[in-house]
Amino acid sequence: MSTRIFPTAQDAENAFYEALERNDLPLMMAVWAEDEDVVCVHPSGPRLAGQEPVRDSWRRIFASEQRLRFRVEHQVTLSGMMLEVHSVHEIITVVGEKAPRPPVVTTNVFLRTAAGWRMIVHHASPAADGDADPPIDTPKILH
Amino acid sequence: MSTRIFPTAQDAENAFYEALERNDLPLMMAVWAEDEDVVCVHPSGPRLAGQEPVRDSWRRIFASEQRLRFRVEHQVTLSGMMLEVHSVHEIITVVGEKAPRPPVVTTNVFLRTAAGWRMIVHHASPAADGDADPPIDTPKILH
Repeated sequence: MSTRIFPTAQDAENAFYEALERNDLPLMMAVWAEDEDVVCVHPSGPRLAGQEPVRDSWRRIFASEQRLRFRVEHQVTLSGMMLEVHSVHEIITVVGEKAPRPPVVTTNVFLRTAAGWRMIVHHASPAADGDADPPIDTPKILH
Repeated sequence: MSTRIFPTAQDAENAFYEALERNDLPLMMAVWAEDEDVVCVHPSGPRLAGQEPVRDSWRRIFASEQRLRFRVEHQVTLSGMMLEVHSVHEIITVVGEKAPRPPVVTTNVFLRTAAGWRMIVHHASPAADGDADPPIDTPKILH
């Protein structure tokens, strides 16, 4: 198990996307708090709550042959003493494909622990492209 | 403009769902921080950042004839001094329909302000039913 310490929430977020690009499970799990109350939502997936379901989901994702490249854009940061929230757009390119996939909108929440900043929430969902035109008139959108 | 004060983050969350059920725009906007850095993601929608886009989206949603009933389940709470994060499942029933829609997984973030707790992030996305079986093997899911 990696014992990397992240002095800032941004350091933890950088390591999160580094782990995703490298399919690096020990690094990924070093990013997450050892608290039981971690929450992870993969795009279009159910909510996973707790260390074991979260670790298991990354293990399955990293076992695939798929290699991804991430560009993180439009970060909005909300900071407290103990918690920090980053809202970002993930622009993901699958290695071997020419164009990026549609953007993913993501809320990442970090907790200040005795061992530096760790991730406690990763909520990712497919999003319409652009910030300006919510498709709220379509019948499937309830709110 | 309502001047309601919410002594806890839970009070603010309760008012948020009350506003949604009543199509009550002044109450909804009383729930949100007056900070510019608020973020709102409606299910399958783009990220809206800032008071005006968020207010405008609720105005459009509340202008519809649709009436909704919310049941909020499986709350996970992460608390700091200034920020509190609630991860919940929203079980939404459209008035006039017999069965609830598929669950929505939601991350709500609240900020402690001089005027009580206010919402700063609402990130809602359609989710597979259940906590246990992430559809991460489907080709559309990148992570």
